[in-house]
Amino acid sequence: MRAHATEQEIAGVCERIQGLGFRAHVMPGAERAAIGITGNHGPVPRSEFEDLPGVAEAIPVSKPYKLVSREVKPDNTVVNVAGVLVGGDELALCAGPCSVESREQILASARAVKSAGAQLLRGGAYKPRTSPYAFQGLGEEGLRYLVEAREETGLGIVTEAIDVEVFDLVEEHADCIQIGARNMQNFSLLRRAGRARKPILLKRGMSNTLEEFLMAAEYILSEGNYQVIMCERGVRTFADHTRNTLDLSVVPAVQRLSHLPIIVDPSHGTGKRDKVHPMALAAVAAGASGLIVEVHPNPDKALSDGFQSLYPHQFRELADECRAISELLKSRRLAAV
Amino acid sequence: MRAHATEQEIAGVCERIQGLGFRAHVMPGAERAAIGITGNHGPVPRSEFEDLPGVAEAIPVSKPYKLVSREVKPDNTVVNVAGVLVGGDELALCAGPCSVESREQILASARAVKSAGAQLLRGGAYKPRTSPYAFQGLGEEGLRYLVEAREETGLGIVTEAIDVEVFDLVEEHADCIQIGARNMQNFSLLRRAGRARKPILLKRGMSNTLEEFLMAAEYILSEGNYQVIMCERGVRTFADHTRNTLDLSVVPAVQRLSHLPIIVDPSHGTGKRDKVHPMALAAVAAGASGLIVEVHPNPDKALSDGFQSLYPHQFRELADECRAISELLKSRRLAAV
Amino acid sequence: MRAHATEQEIAGVCERIQGLGFRAHVMPGAERAAIGITGNHGPVPRSEFEDLPGVAEAIPVSKPYKLVSREVKPDNTVVNVAGVLVGGDELALCAGPCSVESREQILASARAVKSAGAQLLRGGAYKPRTSPYAFQGLGEEGLRYLVEAREETGLGIVTEAIDVEVFDLVEEHADCIQIGARNMQNFSLLRRAGRARKPILLKRGMSNTLEEFLMAAEYILSEGNYQVIMCERGVRTFADHTRNTLDLSVVPAVQRLSHLPIIVDPSHGTGKRDKVHPMALAAVAAGASGLIVEVHPNPDKALSDGFQSLYPHQFRELADECRAISELLKSRRLAAV
Amino acid sequence: MRAHATEQEIAGVCERIQGLGFRAHVMPGAERAAIGITGNHGPVPRSEFEDLPGVAEAIPVSKPYKLVSREVKPDNTVVNVAGVLVGGDELALCAGPCSVESREQILASARAVKSAGAQLLRGGAYKPRTSPYAFQGLGEEGLRYLVEAREETGLGIVTEAIDVEVFDLVEEHADCIQIGARNMQNFSLLRRAGRARKPILLKRGMSNTLEEFLMAAEYILSEGNYQVIMCERGVRTFADHTRNTLDLSVVPAVQRLSHLPIIVDPSHGTGKRDKVHPMALAAVAAGASGLIVEVHPNPDKALSDGFQSLYPHQFRELADECRAISELLKSRRLAAV
Repeated sequence: MRAHATEQEIAGVCERIQGLGFRAHVMPGAERAAIGITGNHGPVPRSEFEDLPGVAEAIPVSKPYKLVSREVKPDNTVVNVAGVLVGGDELALCAGPCSVESREQILASARAVKSAGAQLLRGGAYKPRTSPYAFQGLGEEGLRYLVEAREETGLGIVTEAIDVEVFDLVEEHADCIQIGARNMQNFSLLRRAGRARKPILLKRGMSNTLEEFLMAAEYILSEGNYQVIMCERGVRTFADHTRNTLDLSVVPAVQRLSHLPIIVDPSHGTGKRDKVHPMALAAVAAGASGLIVEVHPNPDKALSDGFQSLYPHQFRELADECRAISELLKSRRLAAV
Repeated sequence: MRAHATEQEIAGVCERIQGLGFRAHVMPGAERAAIGITGNHGPVPRSEFEDLPGVAEAIPVSKPYKLVSREVKPDNTVVNVAGVLVGGDELALCAGPCSVESREQILASARAVKSAGAQLLRGGAYKPRTSPYAFQGLGEEGLRYLVEAREETGLGIVTEAIDVEVFDLVEEHADCIQIGARNMQNFSLLRRAGRARKPILLKRGMSNTLEEFLMAAEYILSEGNYQVIMCERGVRTFADHTRNTLDLSVVPAVQRLSHLPIIVDPSHGTGKRDKVHPMALAAVAAGASGLIVEVHPNPDKALSDGFQSLYPHQFRELADECRAISELLKSRRLAAV
Repeated sequence: MRAHATEQEIAGVCERIQGLGFRAHVMPGAERAAIGITGNHGPVPRSEFEDLPGVAEAIPVSKPYKLVSREVKPDNTVVNVAGVLVGGDELALCAGPCSVESREQILASARAVKSAGAQLLRGGAYKPRTSPYAFQGLGEEGLRYLVEAREETGLGIVTEAIDVEVFDLVEEHADCIQIGARNMQNFSLLRRAGRARKPILLKRGMSNTLEEFLMAAEYILSEGNYQVIMCERGVRTFADHTRNTLDLSVVPAVQRLSHLPIIVDPSHGTGKRDKVHPMALAAVAAGASGLIVEVHPNPDKALSDGFQSLYPHQFRELADECRAISELLKSRRLAAV
Repeated sequence: MRAHATEQEIAGVCERIQGLGFRAHVMPGAERAAIGITGNHGPVPRSEFEDLPGVAEAIPVSKPYKLVSREVKPDNTVVNVAGVLVGGDELALCAGPCSVESREQILASARAVKSAGAQLLRGGAYKPRTSPYAFQGLGEEGLRYLVEAREETGLGIVTEAIDVEVFDLVEEHADCIQIGARNMQNFSLLRRAGRARKPILLKRGMSNTLEEFLMAAEYILSEGNYQVIMCERGVRTFADHTRNTLDLSVVPAVQRLSHLPIIVDPSHGTGKRDKVHPMALAAVAAGASGLIVEVHPNPDKALSDGFQSLYPHQFRELADECRAISELLKSRRLAAV
């Protein structure tokens, strides 16, 4: 659509699309709205739309992913998570423990990460675990503690929905719903996420290509939820000095092909506490819109992933340096314009 | 348990286990039954059991996987799929198209693979697809066509349950329920599979380690379903001459650590028609208990995976040579005893 | 060339090629000779050759590898190693210790593998070792012991040349010169191998694609040595249940694209003694022309790779079963013609 | 050694080491020298050394790599390449074309990268190429052009020695000798590099672990050359959006275990021009001591790797932003002390 297309003009285009038996996807942008079309088999005649009022251009998308593509929507998408803008000018920092372990633990964590500079709180109430005998999370009780932490600190909550069964509950309580790496191609869950009224944090699977990553997001958008944050968390390779190999090059690669914001998880991406700080800085320098970092008030007693969780004071240093790099690059690039 | 332990003796051990607050898992074997214990936190005193009638030995399991381990059950498990024994003396051959596309197509496929020597029919009614816009399977209609094919040919049916939502329907119609590679760590689905009354075919995820593969099976057994067939279908590597890299060494590796049978899928494992035959032979020579092969009456018109589907006459040659190798190795080894 | 082209006709074609400033490569085949052309920049006019006496066809090669391609030479190449034909009807079995450790050890090994059915003896006199402080082989002394073993047992010798410096010595003593996996893209060494008058055993590098593998062979052929045996020895992946992941699908893949024979090393390909036997059978079933297997008279005392070396009696069983599978497939396929 | 150990004290320790039949390796540091011992079989008695004058401590090294280990030498090594300090306070930037293609091309490149802020000039005179028919470099002529470029611009020269044969010539002309990724485990070449009187730039092999990378450096140090710069240049994985996957986590991993400096090659590490800039920034943020970047005055006409070479103006922006990040982190960390 043109830069100042009216709501009426947008509605007009949607009507025409629906009239042809297709589905219209209105995605607002900073400058101008984009309207994606799905449900077509084969090409849609451009001439149907190009003369409608408010239409700037009708562009056939050349990629297998449509709605996530920059071809459909050239402007960056900014996702609003409880007032925190992900994909905008400011770096978005999300931090907290791997799992919600108790009321005290999550409240202490929330206070610590807030005071250290985080804007969002992470913490798993439902945990996907390799072993059926491992701690599987506190479930609904964990969600209630997260809500209490939000009420006290004002931090928005990011927490995982591990299956369709728990999705309603998670959607009710969370500000942003995480789809974990092992579920990146759980297509039923992705469709459910596409019907959610909350933003989705979509983690890249541990051996998924860029195209598969974008197609997973496409599942969500195709159901009508355009608030998706992509997240690189490391891929599986032969390398054994880290738990996963953090593939930061996927940050500019996603940004080139898609309008969706991408953040980085240096905790799972390295699996080692002493690698989290340098890789967090690297992620920000590579252009990530934010970070999600495991921080625990007492890592040595964590029920899961303690070895990769930062102490709160370590997170504070990380947050400060990351923001400094982000500011530096922003100010240089503004000056260059 | 001892070789001829009575049902009463087995019941007695189970009672003792439950009396301690744990869960008892009775797994019958060719020679003797094994009883696994889960639900314990920390070690269970052996002395509680060793004096009970019928007990041969109480063995603490040293691995993170318990019920799937050979430590718990030294005898091979033989899984009965509609009368076909998987893990027994005979090679089990399952064949059919990637997707059920129509009544005619699946009936033609069933006749073709039956006449070529298959004992089981594969075919997806629900398809996990990378793209939300790709053909997603015929769903319940596809299940009905599969049932019709079974009625006509007598072939047992193997078909995938892609999520918990469709599981009931699939369980009702199928003889063996497939969990696909992308769902190998969909723990909710694994738990549901563990409560099914039908055998499960569990495919290895495309970048999962042997331990993760066994742990996924453990999820199923821990819920009480001990009828699990493992399946290698290729892993993701840098190599680009095949779609996946078929890791046949996992066949003897699973057999060493677990009592569960393992079969191989050379179709997804290579992704190229001309590689299916040599890799099928290789799988049998490596000791696989069976194969699952994509065969289509008209591969060039297949809605999915046509490029890796065999023509029926190719499958007949494959089946004949595979059986010949299987027989050869069996007879040599019998002679050597 | 035509099936019964005379030497004079072949010489005539070579003259014409050289007259154009190119290099002619005459590669004899079972049925008919092929003549490759290198040194050209851009296409060579077919008309220059098609009318010459004895010429069947002039074919431009579409691949980046030329002389190794089946386009140039449709017939299989059979490599003669001290009278053992690799790539012919019979399976070629090469066995022996990782390193030559002493005169006694290599003589004992040679007797053991000969009596167990090997036709060729392997054993490293020069060892490429990850650590500068590890045993680097006996060098020239080791070569002399190998020669002594050949004199006593009649087994042809396969041993590695780790660099250009030792190549002359190895060429003088060995019947077949191995280029190790770490040297697969040591192009200077490949060129030297191309000037050798002995056959070359070229191992695939641990993360090299099929095309790179063929291009490495092309380096050798381009210098005039057409006696090259390809060897799969496992590639590096995330999988940790074996030392490397044996990629058997490269066997039919090489055979499709190239006329060169390919064998398999299940010892390095798995790195675990109990996996060598099943993977050796699998390799033969997949169509490999031979095997190279680590066998040591006393694996527990081996200076290198003892954990993956077979005991002689294990190798005997392996050799017997491999030959039986090879015979079975050959006789079935002969019968089918 | 203690902080102010005299040369005489150092010589005394070396004498004692040699007297025991071992080899002494004196590695000077900013604060204090370290003396490594090799050639021992089994442990060396500490008591032999601890009482010698100037000795601070005798430490048995627990790792398979010895001389490269921080256990032997806690201080960072700073490598001096023609006056440019790699591993010191300033970021070291090396840039230039993949290959030296002509006198004009390398002189134009040298001027461009110098004016854009590089301190060192890269350019291959000998090129390791996958195909025997591809451009293999200008050889000695290329070296002479590099020298001419140094004379004109003052930039130090970094160029590759692809084998032992050309090493003498390269050593004579270059200021720093590169060992390429494919040669990382060419142990003969590493030993020759260990006897060179020039610093070595050691690139990580495309599927080598951290330990193998350090062991390759150990080969060089064990021969007496302690001036080694490590270089990450991407590893081979399933990911296909970049040519290689740049594993930046190896930067802090090397720094933790070794005193040697490490730099990053974002050009080969991504293989795509538009990814070079963000990954260069990321490398610096992760703590790399420098970068080696492909820059070509006319990338579209480059004989090799043009698609990943930057235009000179792009390199200028990259250099400016990298230095800004480096300065920012340095000043913050100084302030924090």
